Amino acid sequence: MKIYQKNLDEMKEIVSEYTQATVDMHIEKSVQDIIQKVIKDGDKALREYSQKFDGVDVSDFLVPETDLENAWQTLPENLKNSLLLAKKNITSFHELEKSNGFVDASTPGIIRGQKVIPLKRVGLYIPGGTAAYPSTILMNAIPAKIAGVEEIVMVTPPQKEGINQAVLAAAKLAGIDAVYQVGGAQAIAALAFGTETIKPVDKIVGPGNIFVATAKKQVFGQVAIDMVAGPSEIGILADDSACANELAADLLSQAEHDKRARAMLVTNSLQLAKNVANEIEIQLEKLPRKKIAQAAIEDRSFIAVMENITDMFSLMNTIAPEHLEIQFNDPMEYLGLIKNAGSVFLGRYASEPLGDYVAGPNHVLPTGGTARFSSPLGVYDFVKRTQFIQFSKAALKADVAAITTLARTEGLEAHARAIEARF
Amino acid sequence: MKIYQKNLDEMKEIVSEYTQATVDMHIEKSVQDIIQKVIKDGDKALREYSQKFDGVDVSDFLVPETDLENAWQTLPENLKNSLLLAKKNITSFHELEKSNGFVDASTPGIIRGQKVIPLKRVGLYIPGGTAAYPSTILMNAIPAKIAGVEEIVMVTPPQKEGINQAVLAAAKLAGIDAVYQVGGAQAIAALAFGTETIKPVDKIVGPGNIFVATAKKQVFGQVAIDMVAGPSEIGILADDSACANELAADLLSQAEHDKRARAMLVTNSLQLAKNVANEIEIQLEKLPRKKIAQAAIEDRSFIAVMENITDMFSLMNTIAPEHLEIQFNDPMEYLGLIKNAGSVFLGRYASEPLGDYVAGPNHVLPTGGTARFSSPLGVYDFVKRTQFIQFSKAALKADVAAITTLARTEGLEAHARAIEARF
Repeated sequence: MKIYQKNLDEMKEIVSEYTQATVDMHIEKSVQDIIQKVIKDGDKALREYSQKFDGVDVSDFLVPETDLENAWQTLPENLKNSLLLAKKNITSFHELEKSNGFVDASTPGIIRGQKVIPLKRVGLYIPGGTAAYPSTILMNAIPAKIAGVEEIVMVTPPQKEGINQAVLAAAKLAGIDAVYQVGGAQAIAALAFGTETIKPVDKIVGPGNIFVATAKKQVFGQVAIDMVAGPSEIGILADDSACANELAADLLSQAEHDKRARAMLVTNSLQLAKNVANEIEIQLEKLPRKKIAQAAIEDRSFIAVMENITDMFSLMNTIAPEHLEIQFNDPMEYLGLIKNAGSVFLGRYASEPLGDYVAGPNHVLPTGGTARFSSPLGVYDFVKRTQFIQFSKAALKADVAAITTLARTEGLEAHARAIEARF
Repeated sequence: MKIYQKNLDEMKEIVSEYTQATVDMHIEKSVQDIIQKVIKDGDKALREYSQKFDGVDVSDFLVPETDLENAWQTLPENLKNSLLLAKKNITSFHELEKSNGFVDASTPGIIRGQKVIPLKRVGLYIPGGTAAYPSTILMNAIPAKIAGVEEIVMVTPPQKEGINQAVLAAAKLAGIDAVYQVGGAQAIAALAFGTETIKPVDKIVGPGNIFVATAKKQVFGQVAIDMVAGPSEIGILADDSACANELAADLLSQAEHDKRARAMLVTNSLQLAKNVANEIEIQLEKLPRKKIAQAAIEDRSFIAVMENITDMFSLMNTIAPEHLEIQFNDPMEYLGLIKNAGSVFLGRYASEPLGDYVAGPNHVLPTGGTARFSSPLGVYDFVKRTQFIQFSKAALKADVAAITTLARTEGLEAHARAIEARF
């Protein structure tokens, strides 16, 4: 693993190169064609693409409710209990995210307020194959349920050997209303525009490959989307009190996700940096997903040794990592220095995978530096707000001069006349 | 103005045709080229495009702070007072939108929480020419200020005769930190990627033409954006207690914005429908922006006469209008029936232009049916959330089995090992 010993400005330059996004126009065009064909041909297009991309002839996209029920009933007991614990903690955390509207009646004759209203229909994309993550179903569906969404449908690619049982069981546990076996950009198009079988939704959430991500970006505006997710990332801030083998294990836990994943350690201890780099080599050898993790570590990861704690935090705020561990003896003291991060893990026992599964906070997090402006997925993603006002005649009268002055300044005479029509 | 007397399903079909969005690939490509050139050539590209599209040679993009100060000082007194009133009411409303994070320490050994952190830098696009709207500057900048954004910069197209004085004055009043005279897709590219003069921002907000809207959509992901705004809309729900001349005036107030604006009256009174259509004809004749309003009324607007109040609300929720007036005698009674609308105006004296200027709620609202899933611009648009957790050794130990079971089910061995490395 690369170890840099540079000053802050040099390091900021280096990390900016790591975060360059690229747009592949070939993929953009393919996805656009797929979306247009689904709009035009509906289910027929979905069948053709399922045959072409997944190699599966799908007669009925809807997975029978009994399949979900059976998957849950036959799930191994330890997995059942793990999912139940995850559900309990995700629920208790996200309950705290609920927000209410307000009413302001402080001025006589004037009522102003805001309502919070749940979205009606939400679509959840869940990848198939080896990247089948039941935990992700809970992380997406539970906040939507808490928000009060009426209907949550899930799409997932058809598989020759049938859909992963743990995925179906998690869908049952999460209270998904319908599962459709369709994947890729065609599934996103179906959720956005609807087909004979799949009704259009108001928002699409969930992870996916580059085709899914590109399709989500293209249908944004027609429907809402959660985010355009990139490869996973972990940043660790540590001083010499941290254990090198634990840090190495945490860095590798994100590196194993994807060859393009990023693991970044920022420390003020050269000795720790060397020990972690060494531990990474040792632990890598014994990993089942060694090939993936190694590529991520070699091509996309680094250790930066900084002169002081101020520079460490400044660099990490520039990186704005998806996951951020603070591995100091007194981690809570440093929370106030974090400006940009999706989820923060404080101290030795808040190892990143704890947050992936059972701690309760969401694991759908902003990647690629977007924690600068984006939040973890939450209950607030599944509601919208509506303002309202009611004015008495006297209250409106008091504002006539201001309204008509502004309207006429902006060249909008009909605006002024609408107010004057009342008097 | 068209009057429909159809059943609910037929009307829903008709309104779905009104809301079809179209993508112009020629514009998409032009905008892409502009963005790439700004990334590559920075200020030089901005100068070339300003010359080409605005016909202005710009030597210095930054508008001197003294120009803003002078514009405010020399503003007519009535306009100053109108802007001050707007600022006061926008501020008092948006203060109510502030949200706090939370901490949950209900389980011994476990701390879980969420911080709310303001965005650091925000960019505001303000159109030039005849569509210079000082009110929009207040509506965008005040929520950002309340959220705690450190720096708000504004871009607006260069004008041969100099930038509109009311716009500069409003920028001063709103506390904009810097105004740059650059417009179009090139300005959006500069805000997203930065140039020698303009530092990149975290979020871009504000209205614009199709080039600006397309550019915002294309840079989404690199930065956050508020929304891809379409033409303005007004929906009115009214029974026979409403005054036809007032409804006509309100419908025209939105129709005068844009030839593609939509004005929609849904009522259960055929007599009211006829009276309003008649009033529209009369009032149109005397409007300065008659040509624009007439096109919007004839091509994009309608009156629907429904059988009952249930159908009226069902149709309006399908339309999901940007602005919605409820012109009944007891409007507040019906607020609970509204599922999809940007801003709701209750009763005779809540004429839509009141909300455009001084009532206080935001006038940046979801258009084109996106009120199904989008909210008015608010303080919540200028913050992001960050989760955090801290666990004791015992608390983590209690979760080891669940975490490692889930990690191994998902094929993520390094995740399991990171937890086990602690024990």
